[in-house]
Amino acid sequence: MSNFIHPDFMLQTKTAENLYHNHAESLPIIDYHCHLVPKEIAEDHLFRTITELWLGGDHYKWRLLRANGVSEKYITGDASDWEKFEKWAATVPYTMRNPMYHWTHLELKRVFGIDDLLNPETAFDIYTKVNEMLQMPEFSARGLMNKFNVEVVCTTDDPLDSLEYHKQIKESGFKVKVLPTWRPDKSMAVENCINFRAYVDKLSVITGINITNLDEYSLAISKRHDYFHSNGCKLADHGIDNFFSTPYKNDEVFEIFEKIYNRKENLTNEEILKFKSKMLHDNALLNHSKEWVQQFHYGAIRNNNTRMFNKIGVDAGYDSMNDVYGVAKNMSRFFDNLEFENKLAKSIIYNLNPNDNYLVASMIANFQDGSVPGKIQFGSGWWFLDQKNGMEDQMNVLSTQGLLSRFVGMLTDSRSFVSYPRHEYFRRILCNLIGNDVEAGLLPNSELYFLGNMVENICYRNAKEYFNF
Amino acid sequence: MSNFIHPDFMLQTKTAENLYHNHAESLPIIDYHCHLVPKEIAEDHLFRTITELWLGGDHYKWRLLRANGVSEKYITGDASDWEKFEKWAATVPYTMRNPMYHWTHLELKRVFGIDDLLNPETAFDIYTKVNEMLQMPEFSARGLMNKFNVEVVCTTDDPLDSLEYHKQIKESGFKVKVLPTWRPDKSMAVENCINFRAYVDKLSVITGINITNLDEYSLAISKRHDYFHSNGCKLADHGIDNFFSTPYKNDEVFEIFEKIYNRKENLTNEEILKFKSKMLHDNALLNHSKEWVQQFHYGAIRNNNTRMFNKIGVDAGYDSMNDVYGVAKNMSRFFDNLEFENKLAKSIIYNLNPNDNYLVASMIANFQDGSVPGKIQFGSGWWFLDQKNGMEDQMNVLSTQGLLSRFVGMLTDSRSFVSYPRHEYFRRILCNLIGNDVEAGLLPNSELYFLGNMVENICYRNAKEYFNF
Amino acid sequence: MSNFIHPDFMLQTKTAENLYHNHAESLPIIDYHCHLVPKEIAEDHLFRTITELWLGGDHYKWRLLRANGVSEKYITGDASDWEKFEKWAATVPYTMRNPMYHWTHLELKRVFGIDDLLNPETAFDIYTKVNEMLQMPEFSARGLMNKFNVEVVCTTDDPLDSLEYHKQIKESGFKVKVLPTWRPDKSMAVENCINFRAYVDKLSVITGINITNLDEYSLAISKRHDYFHSNGCKLADHGIDNFFSTPYKNDEVFEIFEKIYNRKENLTNEEILKFKSKMLHDNALLNHSKEWVQQFHYGAIRNNNTRMFNKIGVDAGYDSMNDVYGVAKNMSRFFDNLEFENKLAKSIIYNLNPNDNYLVASMIANFQDGSVPGKIQFGSGWWFLDQKNGMEDQMNVLSTQGLLSRFVGMLTDSRSFVSYPRHEYFRRILCNLIGNDVEAGLLPNSELYFLGNMVENICYRNAKEYFNF
Repeated sequence: MSNFIHPDFMLQTKTAENLYHNHAESLPIIDYHCHLVPKEIAEDHLFRTITELWLGGDHYKWRLLRANGVSEKYITGDASDWEKFEKWAATVPYTMRNPMYHWTHLELKRVFGIDDLLNPETAFDIYTKVNEMLQMPEFSARGLMNKFNVEVVCTTDDPLDSLEYHKQIKESGFKVKVLPTWRPDKSMAVENCINFRAYVDKLSVITGINITNLDEYSLAISKRHDYFHSNGCKLADHGIDNFFSTPYKNDEVFEIFEKIYNRKENLTNEEILKFKSKMLHDNALLNHSKEWVQQFHYGAIRNNNTRMFNKIGVDAGYDSMNDVYGVAKNMSRFFDNLEFENKLAKSIIYNLNPNDNYLVASMIANFQDGSVPGKIQFGSGWWFLDQKNGMEDQMNVLSTQGLLSRFVGMLTDSRSFVSYPRHEYFRRILCNLIGNDVEAGLLPNSELYFLGNMVENICYRNAKEYFNF
Repeated sequence: MSNFIHPDFMLQTKTAENLYHNHAESLPIIDYHCHLVPKEIAEDHLFRTITELWLGGDHYKWRLLRANGVSEKYITGDASDWEKFEKWAATVPYTMRNPMYHWTHLELKRVFGIDDLLNPETAFDIYTKVNEMLQMPEFSARGLMNKFNVEVVCTTDDPLDSLEYHKQIKESGFKVKVLPTWRPDKSMAVENCINFRAYVDKLSVITGINITNLDEYSLAISKRHDYFHSNGCKLADHGIDNFFSTPYKNDEVFEIFEKIYNRKENLTNEEILKFKSKMLHDNALLNHSKEWVQQFHYGAIRNNNTRMFNKIGVDAGYDSMNDVYGVAKNMSRFFDNLEFENKLAKSIIYNLNPNDNYLVASMIANFQDGSVPGKIQFGSGWWFLDQKNGMEDQMNVLSTQGLLSRFVGMLTDSRSFVSYPRHEYFRRILCNLIGNDVEAGLLPNSELYFLGNMVENICYRNAKEYFNF
Repeated sequence: MSNFIHPDFMLQTKTAENLYHNHAESLPIIDYHCHLVPKEIAEDHLFRTITELWLGGDHYKWRLLRANGVSEKYITGDASDWEKFEKWAATVPYTMRNPMYHWTHLELKRVFGIDDLLNPETAFDIYTKVNEMLQMPEFSARGLMNKFNVEVVCTTDDPLDSLEYHKQIKESGFKVKVLPTWRPDKSMAVENCINFRAYVDKLSVITGINITNLDEYSLAISKRHDYFHSNGCKLADHGIDNFFSTPYKNDEVFEIFEKIYNRKENLTNEEILKFKSKMLHDNALLNHSKEWVQQFHYGAIRNNNTRMFNKIGVDAGYDSMNDVYGVAKNMSRFFDNLEFENKLAKSIIYNLNPNDNYLVASMIANFQDGSVPGKIQFGSGWWFLDQKNGMEDQMNVLSTQGLLSRFVGMLTDSRSFVSYPRHEYFRRILCNLIGNDVEAGLLPNSELYFLGNMVENICYRNAKEYFNF
């Protein structure tokens, strides 16, 4: 039995221990951005095995398995659940220093009470024990959410989504608030003419609006925006290559819609940029009108491996960081246009490449308007940056350029019902950072009361107020 | 009473304490780049209140106030001095981990002897006490400079400046050397046709040269360069987007001048780049001919918020970091051209985006010619990088790529008469870095004598020799 | 006498000491990428003086001398060996915090058993003592390689190279395996028409193939590839500006060869990119067919100082980091094309600008195919990054994005026979990193057995298996 995940895990100072245990540990979780499947919550899904739970869709793990020389058969192939788990167990020791090593053992400990380190020797016992537990009601989708004291969860949903499962969940009286998030990426994806036209047609059916031009398209989009709003949506999220802000005229974009939708022609790169620029701007106006918070995730380069894309499709572990050029000018113009119209909603920016940390942290200050603390936020370390170094870098840069105290904190961005320990992980890292500063004399140790409050705010209260949950 | 700013503040090792107290603490200050207003020195300005002193023009603080949800009324608006100070006092605790938290309390302690931490409870007492002190002669502009043992100050001045206040200061026998710096940005700002033409006209009046073409313009510029030189100027400074080095022919640029000045037409982007490339190169030749040091500050993106720009203008806290592309090639070509002519002056490069730290530190080595130690310098952390992490990053990268020992060290870049504790801040950080290395065995502890000398050089002597003060 | 290089140099924890002394210290060295001159090994070169050994071609030192204000006469000029050494000795104290300070004293200690720190006082004694030792057989080229327990060395060789010295070395029974590396940069260097044509002509003579078109050129290249293979070559290396992957058609490139070779015309930039894209792709296919490992070094900007280039040529200390744009897309397309054909060889990517660390570390995961652990590698800190911070950054980023445990570790990239202590330096840094993690509770201290093994793998075994030595 290992004592790896002990009560003071990652807390290197007495101040950190105090801050964590007295201020952070027992706070509820607000998970304002994730990719949970609402159907699984509505139906209170039970998991067949830990393989389904852990390895079914987790491309973080898939990447590490491949890097460890494991054949695809045992990753996304037709090997048995046990065989796949065995390969993962054999890989885990090789992940030392990767965040996965921490997440794995935090989840084993917090979800299943297991202290053993996962490796080939412990694999079978853990597999057997966990699979048994997974058949118990407290390990269902909802059981797990209750276990971790989750207060709010925001899923990620396409405008076409009926939100039927969100309604079911609400009607069922489930104590966790499960809210949709407006993610209209596909409604702007005009780089693929066929898919886009199909999208428009579906939108037409759903809204009952006969869409023949851009104005009707925009009307249909705004109808869905209303529908999301009436179903409790409070956040939008935009996955973008860059902050599209190519200058355009409305009639140009009207004509671009004609071209792609009515004339069924492919667009030029310039036309794509203009279309996306208008759509993103118009979405931002809708977000502002509903007093939503809008999120922007930018900087991924996806599906880099065509051979594997053809075999197993998207979100399979073949995405990574892009080096986007001209971010500052685009971001500046995008927000400036909205600010100029007095229609800039609360916004959170997530960059994927940490090279942009300073850029983003210094840019948001240009659009803080004094209406509310931390109106424009530099989002917590995203995806490849969702690890100790990534989170520390984000918080350090935010601290030097703005107000860490007003940060809305952590989210899981996860598809998994057992990823809530990542909030614990974040909280320990935060307390440790502050503890180190206090013990190095960089923060006054006379201010522990304020600092305790600040930790509580970052872990819970700031988000609750910012999102108006 | 807090003991936050104690004698060993930021010094985490015995070696650091020794280096700081025995080698750095009592050295005079050479502030070779700042934005003090010469008129205020000449007239030995007294400050109405700490609000004028601290919040009158400090856009660093304005950004934090806005981020903290404070309305513009209390920032640049018509609120009273007390109301503004009260808002700032309420914001200060929320700035923990921001450099402003350190600067604020260092200034309170070093300038006014105040140990209390600023917050809503202490605000009124501090306000009252400090305002009283500010009426005493030792807290005048000159009083403050004397208090901090300032030896040299270089202001930042337009070629059109009469330098009358510099003359007054010199004639008054003020013991601090206050020298002008040549900052000809506006003389190259051909992106705005109307402003540029007005600039040329003013230059014409001041120099008595009837400017009708590029040659006459260049002659007038060089006359002002001579004038600055005869008034003690030893430094130039160039605020640039990139190291303009687009190839051009002289007659092309001659014709570009015709176009903008005589034909009053706007220039194309290409023409703007050629004009600036020639002007920057020609300035560098002038700087070399006078044996000045030339500084280059690049990488800002300014006035991002048009709504607020229209309301309160430039330098109001709406600037941030750009992501400039092609820096290496431009920088290389710019310096190579001068080096090829054997006319490269001593130069200091300041990047705003820390992504360029390594690039700059490795580029300067290409143009060290052995004529003088550290001829080409990687400048100290600038603006958004003027904080503990930013300075440590700069010194660490410089150390790995070149010679920290030859670094000319710190400057305030400030508009404030109470920003001299930033030199103390830098010195503590420097001593702490070296102390950590010694105690980790990365530097030999047998070499404390050399290291003490090295600290003195970086804090004072290198600058004195490099700039020939 | 200094105790600077003591047994626990750089090892800050007990765990680090244990890992280093029990697992890393005594392992043989595999130096899979260097620039040793095979002739010097074949002829078992003896060094005239430490000046020849240390200062003859080491542009790292030259850069520091220039930065220290030393005239070129004492660097690459006609000063005597002693004079040059004296200048270097006077510069060494000024290099504190630069890796050169560590390297210098590690080499003095490990090669010559000298504990004194090099400075003007010790210079003459050290010079005298070392020069005497250099006349002894154990300080010959081969003597030094034996002294450091070198098992394999891979040199860097042009396809035109006869490999005669490699053959001589092998025939001589020298116990160190000295293998060539295929470095075909010049065979793609079509930016210089005259040099390229001369290259083709030489290739024609060497291979006996009458080269009149692209197909014959490719055939000749592949013949040399075979020749290298039959002489023990197992690695290729490509020095590139970017991952050339401009789409091309074969007949386009056929025509481009006609233009440059037969019509003797300069190529457009677009043509250069297409030519290089095809050549790099075709080389990658050859590398795959031989089951070699291919290396890519990208991101340098060379010969920045034209005045000095004209005087002393290439590799003279006038190179630095470029800021390459569009790396992610190019790298992705380059590897995707090969992966799509199922012809991607094991690959190692070295970036020169550390801004790309995260990009590279996250990109390699897209092309891990599970066939072998760590098939695509993020290479150890290269050139300007071959220092403590650079290596730590590389290992930290690799750890967060992939598997440090599968890393093939260190190489010297050096022209010097006394640079093997850089392997020691790397090993100490690695053990220190892991030791810190263990003692901070970030790695379980119950796993010291696994961690010891992991250190051995990274320092020696991973490379041995990966390269199949």
